[in-house]
Amino acid sequence: MPDNNETILIPFENMRSEFTRILIRSGFSDNKAEKCAGIFAVNSLEGVYSHGANRFPRFVRNVRDGYVNPDAEPSLIHRTGSLEQWNGNLGPGPLNALFTTERAIELARVNGIGLASLSNTNHWQRGGTYGWHAARKGFIFFCWTNTEANMPAWGAKDVRLGNNPFVIAVPYKDEAVVLDFAMTQFSYGKMENYRREGKRLPYAGGFNASGKLSDDPSEILQTRRALPIGYWKGSAFSILLDILASVISGGQSTHEITGSKVEYSVSQVFIAISKDKLYNASSIESSIMQILNDLKSSLPEEENTWIRYPGENIIKTRKENLKSGIPVNRELWDEIQAL
Amino acid sequence: MPDNNETILIPFENMRSEFTRILIRSGFSDNKAEKCAGIFAVNSLEGVYSHGANRFPRFVRNVRDGYVNPDAEPSLIHRTGSLEQWNGNLGPGPLNALFTTERAIELARVNGIGLASLSNTNHWQRGGTYGWHAARKGFIFFCWTNTEANMPAWGAKDVRLGNNPFVIAVPYKDEAVVLDFAMTQFSYGKMENYRREGKRLPYAGGFNASGKLSDDPSEILQTRRALPIGYWKGSAFSILLDILASVISGGQSTHEITGSKVEYSVSQVFIAISKDKLYNASSIESSIMQILNDLKSSLPEEENTWIRYPGENIIKTRKENLKSGIPVNRELWDEIQAL
Repeated sequence: MPDNNETILIPFENMRSEFTRILIRSGFSDNKAEKCAGIFAVNSLEGVYSHGANRFPRFVRNVRDGYVNPDAEPSLIHRTGSLEQWNGNLGPGPLNALFTTERAIELARVNGIGLASLSNTNHWQRGGTYGWHAARKGFIFFCWTNTEANMPAWGAKDVRLGNNPFVIAVPYKDEAVVLDFAMTQFSYGKMENYRREGKRLPYAGGFNASGKLSDDPSEILQTRRALPIGYWKGSAFSILLDILASVISGGQSTHEITGSKVEYSVSQVFIAISKDKLYNASSIESSIMQILNDLKSSLPEEENTWIRYPGENIIKTRKENLKSGIPVNRELWDEIQAL
Repeated sequence: MPDNNETILIPFENMRSEFTRILIRSGFSDNKAEKCAGIFAVNSLEGVYSHGANRFPRFVRNVRDGYVNPDAEPSLIHRTGSLEQWNGNLGPGPLNALFTTERAIELARVNGIGLASLSNTNHWQRGGTYGWHAARKGFIFFCWTNTEANMPAWGAKDVRLGNNPFVIAVPYKDEAVVLDFAMTQFSYGKMENYRREGKRLPYAGGFNASGKLSDDPSEILQTRRALPIGYWKGSAFSILLDILASVISGGQSTHEITGSKVEYSVSQVFIAISKDKLYNASSIESSIMQILNDLKSSLPEEENTWIRYPGENIIKTRKENLKSGIPVNRELWDEIQAL
């Protein structure tokens, strides 16, 4: 009997071409299938498995169930100076987000800074995708999305806020410094992993049924009371990100997204700043290097640790997985191949 | 013997005129003294005492010691499209920040979105000041500043990151929804208050000498190992905010600011988005109201609590203090009057 929990290594190109084949079978044009498959495969390549291969089957189901329209493309609702508002028309979230990233970049190329927003779009999978894309083209970049409700407001017991991932990216050498974080201390996926492995969380990650902070993933998965980062601060940040996403795009807010069987028609904002248009463009790389060198000269808590900068691990994982293949659960890979 | 810890109530107009008198005595022009005094007095009026009356004596000392030049005004280094980079010339932080806020607003009025950055400026006192100012004029607003190092990176023992306050503001009715937060879970000022009152922090706020999370303010004030919000997330956010502030302004980064006896010559960024230029401008107020109503319909943890939205408390405190006077420690007020 084969071990279904076994991890196998899939070469990047195999994963991408397999995803492409499946998306074409699901109604994507060749070109869009290739682009979208590339985004999913790179997410796994860079170690963000939760929004790469692990989430691919759900994405395909959402396409086949009609929540994601593979043919739809964003349409311009409104343009004013260096700001554009787009309707995602419920197209594939990653393609819509990449398109709008490009629009923000084009606006910034002309005006120094540009904003493109997206209403009525779908899950972008991994926000970092768009940050890395923009930064590697030489643009400082922000983006964020709202989500369905998955976290209680600070002081509340019921779930009314989204974890609303927020991304900041800065070009650095030919790579980038990228921060991609959600407003919950731990994602549900991560808490499920800890539970499966019978482990406690490294820090409190939510509240138990008695309203006490807990590091027991089972207790938190039961109450669904995930902890906002920084307690009241992450709760407030989530509220503002939802207001901004829905107001700037004219799209749905978390309370409107919540309640559908599937999370769809979310709101997103993308802001790009042209590095090359700054007066100090030529010294930026060395400024960032000095900041990161100072960070790395920190005295680590544990002798064998190293202080990483945001995104550093991504570069390392990408190299390793390109060389050795992308680790995938065999059962999951079987499921994907059968799609 | 008078009780020096007594709290007295100072009418807003008295506080403002007293601050104005002192700033004029310290070399400010009448006009600048009035503007700057207004900012300090409103900070106390709105309950942010730490960056109102409490910090006023230190500001005056910095002016008299030559770290803040009362005559200096920002000068334009570079303009490109909807983006401007200004040199603060070590002028008064609050006046420089207000000026640059206005520049971002003017750029957004023309282009939908505008960015103005500020190098070589001084402590802006309370970031919320500029958020409220822009939002009440109808602009969605972001701003942030870097600071001297006052927090260790995640996994490190020595202090190399700033708490780098970050502000988001959105116009709402004639007021605003405003989030103004630093990257440390508790400010040093707050931890000192807890220690003075012999209280524990409500949640862990840093590490003790054994490297364990602690809610004892004395232990943390000793190690200076304040906790970043969301652990590794707030640490990474701080790094990015410092990179952005120094890169976008061309100014100093945290490691360059740190080490002077006094914190000065910091870097700041201000971004405004014109609400009125969005296609959905007329429905924004009702969208925000629905989001806040949903938030307020949360089931509170404790029966007598209410779920507040960011900034709500500011409006309440402003009304109360306008009516009854601003609470100030008598000893502090004596010190101010003697300046």
